[in-house]
Amino acid sequence: MSKMTVKIGGIVIGGGNLIRVQSMTNTDTRDVKKTVAQIKKLEKAGCELVRVSVPDMESAVALKKIKSRINIPLIADIHFDHRLAIEAIKNGADKIRINPGNIGSEEKVKEIIKYAKNAKVPIRIGVNSGSLKKQVNYNLKIKSKNKTANYMVASLMEYIEFFEKNDFYDLVLSLKSSEVEECVEAYRLADKLTDYPLHIGITEAGTEKSGVIKSSVGLGILLYDGIGDTIRVSLSADPVEEIYTAYRILDVTGRRKYGVEIISCPTCARTEIDVIKLASKIEKLTLGISKPLKIAIMGCVVNGPGEAKNADLGISGSKNFGVIFKNGQIIKKIPKQKVIKEFEKELNKLLKGDRK
Amino acid sequence: MSKMTVKIGGIVIGGGNLIRVQSMTNTDTRDVKKTVAQIKKLEKAGCELVRVSVPDMESAVALKKIKSRINIPLIADIHFDHRLAIEAIKNGADKIRINPGNIGSEEKVKEIIKYAKNAKVPIRIGVNSGSLKKQVNYNLKIKSKNKTANYMVASLMEYIEFFEKNDFYDLVLSLKSSEVEECVEAYRLADKLTDYPLHIGITEAGTEKSGVIKSSVGLGILLYDGIGDTIRVSLSADPVEEIYTAYRILDVTGRRKYGVEIISCPTCARTEIDVIKLASKIEKLTLGISKPLKIAIMGCVVNGPGEAKNADLGISGSKNFGVIFKNGQIIKKIPKQKVIKEFEKELNKLLKGDRK
Repeated sequence: MSKMTVKIGGIVIGGGNLIRVQSMTNTDTRDVKKTVAQIKKLEKAGCELVRVSVPDMESAVALKKIKSRINIPLIADIHFDHRLAIEAIKNGADKIRINPGNIGSEEKVKEIIKYAKNAKVPIRIGVNSGSLKKQVNYNLKIKSKNKTANYMVASLMEYIEFFEKNDFYDLVLSLKSSEVEECVEAYRLADKLTDYPLHIGITEAGTEKSGVIKSSVGLGILLYDGIGDTIRVSLSADPVEEIYTAYRILDVTGRRKYGVEIISCPTCARTEIDVIKLASKIEKLTLGISKPLKIAIMGCVVNGPGEAKNADLGISGSKNFGVIFKNGQIIKKIPKQKVIKEFEKELNKLLKGDRK
Repeated sequence: MSKMTVKIGGIVIGGGNLIRVQSMTNTDTRDVKKTVAQIKKLEKAGCELVRVSVPDMESAVALKKIKSRINIPLIADIHFDHRLAIEAIKNGADKIRINPGNIGSEEKVKEIIKYAKNAKVPIRIGVNSGSLKKQVNYNLKIKSKNKTANYMVASLMEYIEFFEKNDFYDLVLSLKSSEVEECVEAYRLADKLTDYPLHIGITEAGTEKSGVIKSSVGLGILLYDGIGDTIRVSLSADPVEEIYTAYRILDVTGRRKYGVEIISCPTCARTEIDVIKLASKIEKLTLGISKPLKIAIMGCVVNGPGEAKNADLGISGSKNFGVIFKNGQIIKKIPKQKVIKEFEKELNKLLKGDRK
């Protein structure tokens, strides 16, 4: 985690604060109604910061209306045109994300800095392996084995120098690539070289199927190392899936306990209940719960009781009946067909109003 | 990777050989027809070793028929009864997996060792955090920060001593838990303390949704560190999904290039083609391809051309047309509705008979 903190709207990231989960809308930002509707859906799923793309003036102006209708900080994603960044700040953006390399000139970046400083709006410097500067002069004191990662971090350090020279320190940093190794090595290096909060993510990770795997591997490695102050999973999918995936990664790396962890056996010849169906039903039942809970669904006596002993709630089955566990103790033995219903009762007791 | 190698049927693991992908059937092993059908499906998906559960004598005897009808090494999963292990060896099992702690006595484990040695059948010692011995006397020279991991590895080392005392070295090791930290720390420690090949996996990882995330994080961390000689992803799902996930994890960690990597942008207000639909269609089109290929599906001009430049084949779109890239060069500009068809033509050219 970073040593410095940055405040985005009402949320402080870095310095050991909660690792915050963000996503990005994929609506047309000018369509305020659709964009707000998507953000509301994201908020409900647990999204804590939301970014929207601002490709034109109309989108920048739309931010004002969008912001007035949502409850989480709004981040403007800007490319190419510094005037869009300035207009976004004027319209209430809580943070600006730019890649200083594609803004055109240092003078134009200075203009953005001026407005951001006045409005106390932090800026994320978003370095992306796909759009690097041609010439980088910064000399890295330490280096990674990965050349692209070195190049990305050198670019980033050069940008940081420029911002600091202009007396601007309200920075969040990101170093994205669609290659896990490039990302991991770049973030590891940046984590050693700077104290600013790191926004971590794998870019263009892919679909809900393959992108979840790539993001889990890349972000999992970083988070397990203790790197990352805010996280975005990028998927070519409904952004709500990004939120779910982000929280599961945070949960399994132990960085932020959140929501329901399902422990279920892969089933084998010993299985006497339909674990796949049961686990999937129970997973659906528990989506949207933010309270950290461990729930076990086990198919047999070999692994069932022993491995479910750490679960807050568990089901294990045999041919004729199901049992419900609570903290390792069998609390109910019931006919199979009543298992889900009884489980839901026990779950609701555990949640006692915590449920969203 | 391990320093030692072990031969399972015709496949050598460890010592820097290919990291092999395995799965486990979830049929009734006594039902030879169903079990063989599932193994055939797994083989087609790229499964290289298959494990079946052997809970009774009838299952052990069935191994003979199963083995005669499949093309990959067959591993017998044994609990509680050493006679099942012996019968499995007699019926042609290429490897036995036991947890020596639940076999009953050292004498019974010795019996298994005798038969395994004669038949040159390797044994996997499968330590599982959910079923640990009560008393472990082994003194670890180095320790992890995680107590359960230390306990798991101490148990494992004690078992290894026993096998070595009985002149048996044909070992594969595993240390499974449903907790990522326990798994990661146990495998890291074992990797330092022994030279035997490591079978890595997270047990009871969960459903296709949550289990994929947990396995990707846990196995991703280990593989990125260079740990692991064979891999199994455990999911409460069709085992074919385990194979797909395993290969994607190997691919993105750079440990074994396999199959198609889809790079697709998460879409935003700038997107002018339906990336989600397109990426999902192309993903389906490319499932089952084993040749390592990188395919990009990009929604706009901001990230499209730049970030697709490392792709073997790519699609990028605007409002009115689509372009197909090959190694960073635009090779075709076509009306949108023809994009998939033209893409498939180019893909087939690239594969030239490599396709399964």
